[in-house]
Amino acid sequence: MDSELRTVLVVGTGLIGTSVALALRQKDVRVLLADRDQGAVRLARELGAGEEWQPERGEPVDLAVIAVPPAHVADELLELQRRGTAAAYTDVASVKAEPIERAAELGCDLSAYVASHPLAGREKSGPGAARADLFLGRPWALCPTPQAAPAAKAAVLRLVELCGANPVEVDAGDHDRAVAVVSHAPHVAASAVAARLADATEVALGLAGQGVRDVTRIAGGDPGLWLGILSGNASPVAEVLEAVAHDLAEAATALRALAEGDGTAGDDLVHLLKRGVAGHGRIPGKHGGPAPAYVVVQVVIGDRPGQLARLFQVCDEVGVNVEDVRLEHAPGLPLGIAELSVQPDAASVLTAALHERGWQVP
Amino acid sequence: MDSELRTVLVVGTGLIGTSVALALRQKDVRVLLADRDQGAVRLARELGAGEEWQPERGEPVDLAVIAVPPAHVADELLELQRRGTAAAYTDVASVKAEPIERAAELGCDLSAYVASHPLAGREKSGPGAARADLFLGRPWALCPTPQAAPAAKAAVLRLVELCGANPVEVDAGDHDRAVAVVSHAPHVAASAVAARLADATEVALGLAGQGVRDVTRIAGGDPGLWLGILSGNASPVAEVLEAVAHDLAEAATALRALAEGDGTAGDDLVHLLKRGVAGHGRIPGKHGGPAPAYVVVQVVIGDRPGQLARLFQVCDEVGVNVEDVRLEHAPGLPLGIAELSVQPDAASVLTAALHERGWQVP
Repeated sequence: MDSELRTVLVVGTGLIGTSVALALRQKDVRVLLADRDQGAVRLARELGAGEEWQPERGEPVDLAVIAVPPAHVADELLELQRRGTAAAYTDVASVKAEPIERAAELGCDLSAYVASHPLAGREKSGPGAARADLFLGRPWALCPTPQAAPAAKAAVLRLVELCGANPVEVDAGDHDRAVAVVSHAPHVAASAVAARLADATEVALGLAGQGVRDVTRIAGGDPGLWLGILSGNASPVAEVLEAVAHDLAEAATALRALAEGDGTAGDDLVHLLKRGVAGHGRIPGKHGGPAPAYVVVQVVIGDRPGQLARLFQVCDEVGVNVEDVRLEHAPGLPLGIAELSVQPDAASVLTAALHERGWQVP
Repeated sequence: MDSELRTVLVVGTGLIGTSVALALRQKDVRVLLADRDQGAVRLARELGAGEEWQPERGEPVDLAVIAVPPAHVADELLELQRRGTAAAYTDVASVKAEPIERAAELGCDLSAYVASHPLAGREKSGPGAARADLFLGRPWALCPTPQAAPAAKAAVLRLVELCGANPVEVDAGDHDRAVAVVSHAPHVAASAVAARLADATEVALGLAGQGVRDVTRIAGGDPGLWLGILSGNASPVAEVLEAVAHDLAEAATALRALAEGDGTAGDDLVHLLKRGVAGHGRIPGKHGGPAPAYVVVQVVIGDRPGQLARLFQVCDEVGVNVEDVRLEHAPGLPLGIAELSVQPDAASVLTAALHERGWQVP
């Protein structure tokens, strides 16, 4: 079966659509661009994402990628199919059950359609934020219905491959429940923690450390965009949030009891903290495997040009691969700590080499 | 007033106590060590944190640092004061109101005592995890009572200075409410989000991205240690958790209404997301100032030795200071993205230099 993609139509040239187009252009696929907003098409074209689609030309298209908000996917699919636009169709919306159901209701041809969702994004939006490598190494969920033809599945798999992503075939309902747990509900929880900081005192903010920075980082995302995502996956997200709210209310009750001197109330709290440790430990590490036991080597660095270059130069000299790096903020002082995650057997080599060269390795 | 510290006694040689001792030893302060666990004292001594305290010698001590769990601070203070151990006293527990109240109840001499709390820690514990630079550039809260003598305040300020931390004078109650918002409640919220992952499907975990990793990072902390911290600050933490739980329950209600087709329910949700954006924006950035508008330059890197050294070498060559760095994980592929945070005016310089040298800067 020839699943080669010669020409792909991208409908919706926002962040995701334009990034797909840019990735395909790097692989010399011909890309046609469409968007209700002519300015967005023009910008995407100027970025090298492809050329403007001229539907009246009736040019043959191997795959149409529908990159519009979840609520509009099915209508767009129907319109494109009525025109006989492409041999196969997919969409890239972040929820999957609702668009598929609606497409079935509208009488779309489900044999030519495989819904999908690349797990990639940025805090910025629009074609200007697009990147050809946005999907490199990221999971890309595929949710084919039983009606989907092998040729349609092959075309969408080829798209995922050309974008450098990892295809994950999953039932649409399972997908939606999964992203509720690992993406949508954590976003709302981060917002609720960050909301407390909105009316916190300056004193409280002055005592903020790395922990609360990490917990609330994603709370900076665009509220309008997130309303669309959450609305499209409302019931699964609500279910997770109800469970989180329940746990937090119980933790508060336990703390109130502890404040009243009831020592046994600590058990409930420890149980929650232990479940948190267990859940945290299940998140896969880099490269998709289980979280590896890296050792963190901490190095004191000055906050001026050249320090990090010299530090990584040492790592290079002794052949140590740095798996991850984190710079610890040092409020008020021009000093920081670089935390280098390395393989356990590399830690002593690196520590010794850094000591020898006069670095402060506590 | 001579606030020089010649001899300091550290009672409790865990992570914080031993780190204080190591910092003082680096400044040539004489440090005496005590702990109910003889093994902990021995280990601290072997690490170069000081020598074992011999109370029967009656050696004059300028300051006693009480580094024991919050519930034992006041008893320890009373015992030390009965012996006339030191000229001034402080403690370093993570809650402040309760130990001070209890010290007053026990009839401790409050003129010689200034409670304090360094905002620093690690996920590891014990003297073996101690570091002389643990407090470098970190806030260190001081909570003097009205009874505190100037000499006692000066001694504790000198301690903070010798440890390289930033003193922040704050009322004990305000301190406890502040850390409830910026540290204790976020920890429990992270645990509750992470707890959902404990029984999540493999599919869900396979779709986990950077967002949920950040939100749940601190949930990996030791449950026993955290029970002690939360118990000592029970009411303020309960208050914050009740507010977070309430917001999440309301968000769930809004989502249930949206699922039923009530479009107006989205307003409540957007309101919460907007408050989250506002709160997130108030967290001070590096160096204690307001969060600066750094620009993120993204660079595609291979996951092998030498790449980061070459990357930072380029930054160095063009005189660009990297304010923060983050390596994005690329599950399944030996490729990653380094996100370099730089000053806005340095971004174009760096991007051009990297392009010129053949780096993939999307």
